[in-house]
Amino acid sequence: MDAEHKFQVRKLEILDKSKGFIELLQQLTICDSVSDKEFEERFQEINSFGDDHLICVIEDDHSGKIIATGSVFIEKKFLRNCGKVGHIEDVVVDSAARGMQLGKKIIEFLTDHAHSMGCYKVILDCSLENKAFYEKCGYRQKEVQMVKYFA
Amino acid sequence: MDAEHKFQVRKLEILDKSKGFIELLQQLTICDSVSDKEFEERFQEINSFGDDHLICVIEDDHSGKIIATGSVFIEKKFLRNCGKVGHIEDVVVDSAARGMQLGKKIIEFLTDHAHSMGCYKVILDCSLENKAFYEKCGYRQKEVQMVKYFA
Repeated sequence: MDAEHKFQVRKLEILDKSKGFIELLQQLTICDSVSDKEFEERFQEINSFGDDHLICVIEDDHSGKIIATGSVFIEKKFLRNCGKVGHIEDVVVDSAARGMQLGKKIIEFLTDHAHSMGCYKVILDCSLENKAFYEKCGYRQKEVQMVKYFA
Repeated sequence: MDAEHKFQVRKLEILDKSKGFIELLQQLTICDSVSDKEFEERFQEINSFGDDHLICVIEDDHSGKIIATGSVFIEKKFLRNCGKVGHIEDVVVDSAARGMQLGKKIIEFLTDHAHSMGCYKVILDCSLENKAFYEKCGYRQKEVQMVKYFA
């Protein structure tokens, strides 16, 4: 890939399903194929939250493929004087597109969005091995994440 | 407090502001006084999400005070075949009401709600010192939480 690439971050569009968006998520976790109908329904559901739930992507304008994504949703609280918190989720960069700071671009875009929405903080969970990356993005470790799976 | 107390978990109601709900949150973090108008607006905002954002409380039926609370909201994803994840937040038990398993009741209520909403997992962030409590509730540590505050 050459220097002409701009790698702009933009909002997820419904046509991104045909540009490898689901295949990109499969690099992150279990995700079987999603039908066009399922995708459209979930897209509209998330879209109905407006700026409170944003999914962004980077498209490689040469290949026409989605090569990075991430999401943030805005939680409304009573504490912190009816404050708001941004939750970043599902950040993934195509394994063939690493080393070009695309992950950093995604995180900056999502963090700026949370800030512009009036959040007092943004949080995310990551593996220990990804901690250094998020520290470069201005994050610091605070708590531990606990999980319960429903079999 | 005696054995007649049932300590039932129920959904937050708008009248709970006058029963010490905000003062309870102040035991968790910074929270100045919230006006009735601010409270009502935020209450309606959260209420508009229906079962996708639930705040529960336990009221002490002797004192009429709210002595425990917690919240869960349901995040809609594309991964995991358009899966859903429950996020538990803002769990607090009145310092004068510890040792009665109220925290466990709150967590069970919120976890059951996420399960009934079709989530494949529930997650939460906690301090290392509270980890053992959540393990007793069936949770296990997975990742680390990263945070960025906006000054």
